[in-house]
Amino acid sequence: MKDYKVLEIKTSVFADNNIQAEKLRGELKEKKVFLLNLMSSPGSGKTTTLVRTIHALKDELSIGVMEADIDSDVDAQTIRQTGAKAIQLHTGGMCHLDAEMTRQGLEGLDPEGLDLVILENVGNLVCPAEFDTGAVKNVMILSVPEGDDKPLKYPLMFSICDVVLINKMDVLPYFNFDLEKCRENIRLRNPNAVIIPISALKEEGIEEWTDWLGDAVKSWCE
Amino acid sequence: MKDYKVLEIKTSVFADNNIQAEKLRGELKEKKVFLLNLMSSPGSGKTTTLVRTIHALKDELSIGVMEADIDSDVDAQTIRQTGAKAIQLHTGGMCHLDAEMTRQGLEGLDPEGLDLVILENVGNLVCPAEFDTGAVKNVMILSVPEGDDKPLKYPLMFSICDVVLINKMDVLPYFNFDLEKCRENIRLRNPNAVIIPISALKEEGIEEWTDWLGDAVKSWCE
Repeated sequence: MKDYKVLEIKTSVFADNNIQAEKLRGELKEKKVFLLNLMSSPGSGKTTTLVRTIHALKDELSIGVMEADIDSDVDAQTIRQTGAKAIQLHTGGMCHLDAEMTRQGLEGLDPEGLDLVILENVGNLVCPAEFDTGAVKNVMILSVPEGDDKPLKYPLMFSICDVVLINKMDVLPYFNFDLEKCRENIRLRNPNAVIIPISALKEEGIEEWTDWLGDAVKSWCE
Repeated sequence: MKDYKVLEIKTSVFADNNIQAEKLRGELKEKKVFLLNLMSSPGSGKTTTLVRTIHALKDELSIGVMEADIDSDVDAQTIRQTGAKAIQLHTGGMCHLDAEMTRQGLEGLDPEGLDLVILENVGNLVCPAEFDTGAVKNVMILSVPEGDDKPLKYPLMFSICDVVLINKMDVLPYFNFDLEKCRENIRLRNPNAVIIPISALKEEGIEEWTDWLGDAVKSWCE
């Protein structure tokens, strides 16, 4: 038997997503729940990064995860093995989550007693960037095999993220990826983004990231 | 000075994209122009694969390329260096191309005298799969670093593609990617897809792919 729910979420009927997002953020502030929106391309290592993040923070924070996918529930299975509360959201073909869809997910998860809820958004560098989910912070993962030019091609995604994790640093020797060039390209889009190179697979750079996240959660929940 | 155009394309006003796509395909058949729609995640190697494809086929076919991107024109620059006719399409934030947007691109490129036009769609495994562009064939690239589970997560994309190129085979030793498992996952979505492992960087497997493409163009243009 599955020990996580699979929820088929409906497309939002609200025209003004920004108002819904602000409303949701206000409610989360009252409940002292920190919502993190995690975005990336397909296959950049979101789920492995999440597993490392949960392991690093689970002794100090109570964590829940919403796994959004067009279909399948392989990710929720993986997350459940960490002991974190998890729900799988099926978007029914939709390429992103908006604030109302996120609200449906939160109601399905039930964030009562959780400090941190992480939304693993649909793997896509375009559409998720256009919709405020109501999250407190936005984080994206860019992986080394994708190339250092991605900030030039997907400007909105890089401009809205508070943190850019550069993942799969362990395979840097096998790719034409210039880390300094990548930093420059990110800065062009977003001078304030925190940039943290990591290898989720090899568990490198995770502490800098989870320190940032732990601090952000604490200041939100104070 | 740029030796390719940059075109800002407008969102389609046509509700019935399928009718527009069939109409465009009919016109291309009359003009003996083969339109290929190339899709993938960001960073899977579309442009490098295109460069190899053009080099392999340029002696037998007259080739044009439409590079669709949210922003930037780095790809059109790269393609122009192969000698192929190229145009950069800016989608203005849109995450896909539909048939009418493709028609605007073709008018900008001017396919007169071309045998093969390749549309490099926006890097995205979700939205481009939902819109028939009017192309004769759909091809996608899945790269090894993205993982062998992607057909489970992005079912529509895999189900509509005539060919799946599995790229970056040269880095297979450094990733947990099971080629046979990947084939099985693709077959689940699309039993008829032609699956060709390649390394665009190392120029491996390209001949099998360009043979397939050359044959497809010939039978369309007969």
